[in-house]
Amino acid sequence: MTRTPIQVKLAETKKEKPNAETLVFGRTFTDHMFVADFEEGKGWHSHRIVPYEPISLDPASIVFHYGQTVFEGMKAYKNEEGVIRLFRPEENMKRLNLSLDRLCMPKIDEHSALHGLTELLRIERDWIPTLEGTSLYIRPFVIATEAFLGVAPARKYQFIIILSPVGSYYKEGIHPVKILVENEFVRAVKGGTGGAKTAGNYAAGLKAQEVADQQGYSQVLWLDGVERKYVEEVGSMNIFFKINGEIITPAINGSILEGITRKSILDLLRHWEIPVSERKISMEEIRDAYEKGILEEVFGTGTAAVISPVGELNWDGYKMIVNNGKTGDLSMKLYNTLTNIQTGQEEDPFNWVQKIVQEYAKLA
Amino acid sequence: MTRTPIQVKLAETKKEKPNAETLVFGRTFTDHMFVADFEEGKGWHSHRIVPYEPISLDPASIVFHYGQTVFEGMKAYKNEEGVIRLFRPEENMKRLNLSLDRLCMPKIDEHSALHGLTELLRIERDWIPTLEGTSLYIRPFVIATEAFLGVAPARKYQFIIILSPVGSYYKEGIHPVKILVENEFVRAVKGGTGGAKTAGNYAAGLKAQEVADQQGYSQVLWLDGVERKYVEEVGSMNIFFKINGEIITPAINGSILEGITRKSILDLLRHWEIPVSERKISMEEIRDAYEKGILEEVFGTGTAAVISPVGELNWDGYKMIVNNGKTGDLSMKLYNTLTNIQTGQEEDPFNWVQKIVQEYAKLA
Repeated sequence: MTRTPIQVKLAETKKEKPNAETLVFGRTFTDHMFVADFEEGKGWHSHRIVPYEPISLDPASIVFHYGQTVFEGMKAYKNEEGVIRLFRPEENMKRLNLSLDRLCMPKIDEHSALHGLTELLRIERDWIPTLEGTSLYIRPFVIATEAFLGVAPARKYQFIIILSPVGSYYKEGIHPVKILVENEFVRAVKGGTGGAKTAGNYAAGLKAQEVADQQGYSQVLWLDGVERKYVEEVGSMNIFFKINGEIITPAINGSILEGITRKSILDLLRHWEIPVSERKISMEEIRDAYEKGILEEVFGTGTAAVISPVGELNWDGYKMIVNNGKTGDLSMKLYNTLTNIQTGQEEDPFNWVQKIVQEYAKLA
Repeated sequence: MTRTPIQVKLAETKKEKPNAETLVFGRTFTDHMFVADFEEGKGWHSHRIVPYEPISLDPASIVFHYGQTVFEGMKAYKNEEGVIRLFRPEENMKRLNLSLDRLCMPKIDEHSALHGLTELLRIERDWIPTLEGTSLYIRPFVIATEAFLGVAPARKYQFIIILSPVGSYYKEGIHPVKILVENEFVRAVKGGTGGAKTAGNYAAGLKAQEVADQQGYSQVLWLDGVERKYVEEVGSMNIFFKINGEIITPAINGSILEGITRKSILDLLRHWEIPVSERKISMEEIRDAYEKGILEEVFGTGTAAVISPVGELNWDGYKMIVNNGKTGDLSMKLYNTLTNIQTGQEEDPFNWVQKIVQEYAKLA
């Protein structure tokens, strides 16, 4: 495989690294970032690693006005021996390309992107925390940089990867959250951009989150935009229900983001021979299961939180307390197994983990 | 009224002004821009006019990742005597605040914003073209600038106004366009952000536009996201139908943007005592009207194009040729009246036009 050459310009001064004990999510960034430029007719070029610094953009850049921007989220883990692990990074790059296509943006070369990421991780390896529960959050994103106030796909883009050492997504660690079922606002609808990881979907969700916050709920549960009956996602995570021993998650339908954690959870469950089903699931069905006493566990899944157990679901004032408001056994087992695979503390039967950076360490 | 003081820093060198005869839409920007900053706890501050220059933003700025950004579009006209006219600018600032609220962004002070705009126009008056059909396009926008990778409203924002001298939105001038009725993609849905002027709505529309382009259509006609039956908007414009002498436009429903041109057209029609109706209108009804020979005119309305007549509607292969593919009398009359009011060539019975800059010219 030919690799796109990467120009490297190292930072002259380095920032102080934060205390791993008190890391918060998404507020500290490392010393360098990866950047590549796209121009129509020229393609992606000028792959480089440069000091982390502000981006300078024309105020008329399309990203500000017409929202051509997509992103990914992934994590790198480092163990005490300095081995760095990525979890299914090729899946993120594949999904980035799906998102780019939906937004009429030019696809990236997945191999070059992964190569850029691994080079960046090699340079920033001292930034990856090793403390239990910590990791280096990776944010690849593409923005439209052409200065043009017409509603049309841009002819210029930037692909950027930034890194942020993080603690747990939830300050309190894994513990069940209270969820409000959203009846007014809609995150996405069939035919829209819900299946792509693009900024507009997240912006659309803020208002509902604000209302939920005011009522003491951590996140909202999104229903489908057409019938307002079927479950879609929870906050910015996929959602799973354990009903009478079976695990059910909404099927991918165009408006739900196809989570890589979701996919991995499904693989794990099937591997364990636990019955799983990807299908439509309505709030009525969930309420009926609750009333019958067979709504055993509910949890959200995503890269940031991995597993987020749900302790309460409030549907229009009807409160369902799940598993006595405690983290369920299966949720806990999934969280432990997945994070252990991600961090290399447990066998990886699926070959999910890439120890890319170690390879470079050997070469260096 | 107390006015927020504005710091002015003039550009040292000025750009060459483009030839008014060959102006295109949204590619040339003037020498200065208006900027104000927001910080939680401090509010909007540092109102200033500075040379038009790149914005410098942390790569983790929320606007790039979670799409907190809203905008407005309006025009300034200048006549041979140097009188500058704005068309209902207070309506744009009002709508900007509605959009800001939907996206959980802090409201601006409408008076301060208009004051900033008029100061900017006073400085840039030589940039306003006077040639028939030309104007100075005004783009106020607000972006979330806080560097934080968590899905939550930002605590820092910038409000910016940039200006662009423009010719007609359509290179060919006012002439009927061919429209493809969109059956696969959805622009917005009830409960979503369709009623707000935010980037994500425009990003969502690009894919459908790409497909329409490939089939030789200028724009798409958006149907509602729930039943896929009712007409919503055309491209990024509102839409009107003349059926058997009555003018019908989709009622504001939360997913349709409440256009200021739309509102003005409704006022004009009522002023002329032409029957108008704001209500749901389905594609079936339009097809039935076409088959009965009473679908007399169809046109889009928006700030950029003002009036955009529709000469053909293609609904799933069924082609409706409207008014023999020619611009209808009413479309033409509305275009002429509205642009004449905007440019001061015709009486303004509604008091829509603000000659703000002339006032400053007098004071200077």
